[in-house]
Amino acid sequence: MDYEAKLNRLNEIIAEISDLNAAGALLGWDQQVNMPAGGAEGRGYTLGTLGRLAHERFVSAEVGTLLDELEPYAAGLDPDSDTARTIKVLRRNYTKETKVPSEMVVEFAQTTTMAHGVWAKARHENDFASFQPMLEKLVDLRRRYAELFAPYTHVYDPLLDDFEPGLKTADVKQIFEALRPQQVELIKAIAGQPQVDASFLYQHYDEQKQWDFGVEVLTKIGYDWNRSRQDRAAHPFTTNFGNWDVRITTRFDQNYVGSALFSTLHEGGHAMYELGVDSKYNRTALAGGASLAVHESQSRMWENLVGRSLPFWEHFYPRLQEYFPEQLGNVPLESFYKGINRVEPSLIRVEADEATYNLHIMLRLEIEIALMEGKLAVKDLPEYWNARMQEYLGLTPPNDAKGVLQDVHWSGGMIGYFSTYALGNLVSGQFWEKINQDIPDLSEQIRQGKFEGLRGWLVEKVHQHGSKYEPQEMVQRVTGSKIDPAPYMRYLQDKYRKIYGLA
Amino acid sequence: MDYEAKLNRLNEIIAEISDLNAAGALLGWDQQVNMPAGGAEGRGYTLGTLGRLAHERFVSAEVGTLLDELEPYAAGLDPDSDTARTIKVLRRNYTKETKVPSEMVVEFAQTTTMAHGVWAKARHENDFASFQPMLEKLVDLRRRYAELFAPYTHVYDPLLDDFEPGLKTADVKQIFEALRPQQVELIKAIAGQPQVDASFLYQHYDEQKQWDFGVEVLTKIGYDWNRSRQDRAAHPFTTNFGNWDVRITTRFDQNYVGSALFSTLHEGGHAMYELGVDSKYNRTALAGGASLAVHESQSRMWENLVGRSLPFWEHFYPRLQEYFPEQLGNVPLESFYKGINRVEPSLIRVEADEATYNLHIMLRLEIEIALMEGKLAVKDLPEYWNARMQEYLGLTPPNDAKGVLQDVHWSGGMIGYFSTYALGNLVSGQFWEKINQDIPDLSEQIRQGKFEGLRGWLVEKVHQHGSKYEPQEMVQRVTGSKIDPAPYMRYLQDKYRKIYGLA
Repeated sequence: MDYEAKLNRLNEIIAEISDLNAAGALLGWDQQVNMPAGGAEGRGYTLGTLGRLAHERFVSAEVGTLLDELEPYAAGLDPDSDTARTIKVLRRNYTKETKVPSEMVVEFAQTTTMAHGVWAKARHENDFASFQPMLEKLVDLRRRYAELFAPYTHVYDPLLDDFEPGLKTADVKQIFEALRPQQVELIKAIAGQPQVDASFLYQHYDEQKQWDFGVEVLTKIGYDWNRSRQDRAAHPFTTNFGNWDVRITTRFDQNYVGSALFSTLHEGGHAMYELGVDSKYNRTALAGGASLAVHESQSRMWENLVGRSLPFWEHFYPRLQEYFPEQLGNVPLESFYKGINRVEPSLIRVEADEATYNLHIMLRLEIEIALMEGKLAVKDLPEYWNARMQEYLGLTPPNDAKGVLQDVHWSGGMIGYFSTYALGNLVSGQFWEKINQDIPDLSEQIRQGKFEGLRGWLVEKVHQHGSKYEPQEMVQRVTGSKIDPAPYMRYLQDKYRKIYGLA
Repeated sequence: MDYEAKLNRLNEIIAEISDLNAAGALLGWDQQVNMPAGGAEGRGYTLGTLGRLAHERFVSAEVGTLLDELEPYAAGLDPDSDTARTIKVLRRNYTKETKVPSEMVVEFAQTTTMAHGVWAKARHENDFASFQPMLEKLVDLRRRYAELFAPYTHVYDPLLDDFEPGLKTADVKQIFEALRPQQVELIKAIAGQPQVDASFLYQHYDEQKQWDFGVEVLTKIGYDWNRSRQDRAAHPFTTNFGNWDVRITTRFDQNYVGSALFSTLHEGGHAMYELGVDSKYNRTALAGGASLAVHESQSRMWENLVGRSLPFWEHFYPRLQEYFPEQLGNVPLESFYKGINRVEPSLIRVEADEATYNLHIMLRLEIEIALMEGKLAVKDLPEYWNARMQEYLGLTPPNDAKGVLQDVHWSGGMIGYFSTYALGNLVSGQFWEKINQDIPDLSEQIRQGKFEGLRGWLVEKVHQHGSKYEPQEMVQRVTGSKIDPAPYMRYLQDKYRKIYGLA
């Protein structure tokens, strides 16, 4: 048997699927950045056809036969070789995708398309009851989906695995149980201290100047404009088509300078991950990032561990003051630094600070697991949500729009997604400790506006490997241990000790 | 046999191909409007895959069998029914596409990809000799392509037919032979009169103001922004994805106000054609315009017959003066009108005025026919070109960059394309006479800035029918005769008589 020919054929099919997905990604980007409103119907058809063709191609008998034939060959290779990893990733995805009957795929797509509109209206009108039947259907659909993968250790495992290959519900629960009391304690300690001022961030900040400053920062930290661009969109996101063309979007709030700035750094972090993937993985099964959590570790690192650090602003604050002399000319660096790191329990996840953010996630994870286990009914969600918000953050939402209805994810059937945000924070903390060990003068480099060292480290240790390693494996390879909340908590405690003068 | 099921299946396949082509069109648009330079390699793969999948799908045995089976059924239908026309168009395209061996498709694609770079360099360095071997290869490839369709009446017929379904070389020659002496005579007559001034058009005109005025004009003439948009690009063009989403691009010259303005109207004319196609033709074989010439009749009508008319500027000139008081405040309407209609033989086709434009086209058509007939060798092109330019326009290019190397088309293997530009002018003249018969107060409507009547007429008579009718058929249906140069010549003579005071 000519294994090489078979492998080439398999890679050829994957490249073709990758091309269809790249086209779909551009169409999705365009939909949010450029498309006139009237284009929605046609765009729906086009995206539907591209998605269907890619799916049909992948679950074809030809791919199954090639995998069957290549697995014995791959078993004889170094398990860390690209070929062995390719076969492993493809087998995993093939098994998953072929297990799902196409009727379920269609039903899920139709339900989520409808649910999005229902959710948006329900949130707008603050009416959970109108969304409840939709969410019940989606929970049911996700449970039926999970059943396809029985036997499992936990019914939530198959959902989590879609976003974090190899990670188990038990792992996440264990991590979060260690983390929760420490986060709660930290917030309590901060609440006992005098609050810092952040009012100067909430003034009129000209949009074009915000844009220009953001571009300046991206350029300085090493964003490669030859392979990327930035646009305005209603929701910030990153998309890419191989490592050739990576795009971020940003939105602007003219009354709050932090919004665009930190979201630009966040998306820039995602983008630099994709830009750093080895070119040899373009159009292969190993393209893209390792998982959502590892991706989030990169975006949260640039947004927070770098972008809300004192050395970073020692470098950039004078420039920001030049852009906004009226607003910031009389605000000392120290005050600015404290302001952008102000901790205050709040109702809305996407506006949460670093100290409270993970608690928003834990609440959602608990709910998702309870829903999937059948221990919580959808109709009881608002009550459950509000009780937990009070327990974790000392706040009760005045209505469901600011509570259980705030996030888009569930209307899209994305149960299993939320924990990746918090896991990303934890991984960023682990990487950060390791980077600071490997580059002892990192703070000084950042203070001087030099980011080559940091970026080089990230490319070498993380980015270049694409999706070759599973997330736990990747973290283990880089830091010597699996996902662990301790470094992130040390980072938070150290940071807020200085800002809030904790003991 | 269940014809309906077969027809549905055929339409389903065509819809899928249409989706692949729509995705390709968006990727092509993005490439010229947004794509970072580094994206070119990946974009090439993606476009290649989409094109190949669409082609493979269309030339499949399944489509052939469905056509075979549906033809007897369609023969029993009204030949003007959508179904009969769909089968006719698909059979025509299927026969064409299946006749071309895939090796020739690949060779042609590779050669044109290479030739574009060689041509650009040759033009830049004014070195025809370096382009000559490439063009020889392309001419040879096009002849081999034509041979696939033997027997033909003329070797140029199969090439022309790709752009103008049903039109024959003999038709075009006959039309042009009637037209040429009249155009030459008109130009001579104008040359004998005092020249009009156009220098005020060549001042500094702020780009943003040009953009704003262009948008105002497009809005007023009825461009539907809910289904369209405008962007900047190096070359103006129009693209669309069904009638849901139609996009134009414009380029700006800050030292000449006419460039963006008339190119915006030109592309706007193309766009309004696509926007006016009946929605029922979306994702079908009858989507899009009838042919390049009919398309050009719409763009040239808005650019010239409307956009360079006195009534149009009686309405818009006061606004233009408000945008540019320094430049135009002291230029009377009459002078402005004459300036934008100034006739002056020139070397470059895309800068030619209405009176000389067609001669540029005739020269190219003669050359293409002679090349295909084997009566002219590629190496003799520069000499031939320069002699004809002298004969038709009284000018000899100082170099080949301003002569035979000026157009991109041949480097793309697009032999058979040029005549559509001149034919579009002629058709616009025919439509224009008919419109003015049907709407006797059209000039007054335009003077008042009312374009609903004109647009309604175009949608009813031309746009809504998509590509259901062949170009000659379409012109016949609308005007009662086939393509005929007389109305366009009457239009030109009448116009220039007034502007240049001809007898």
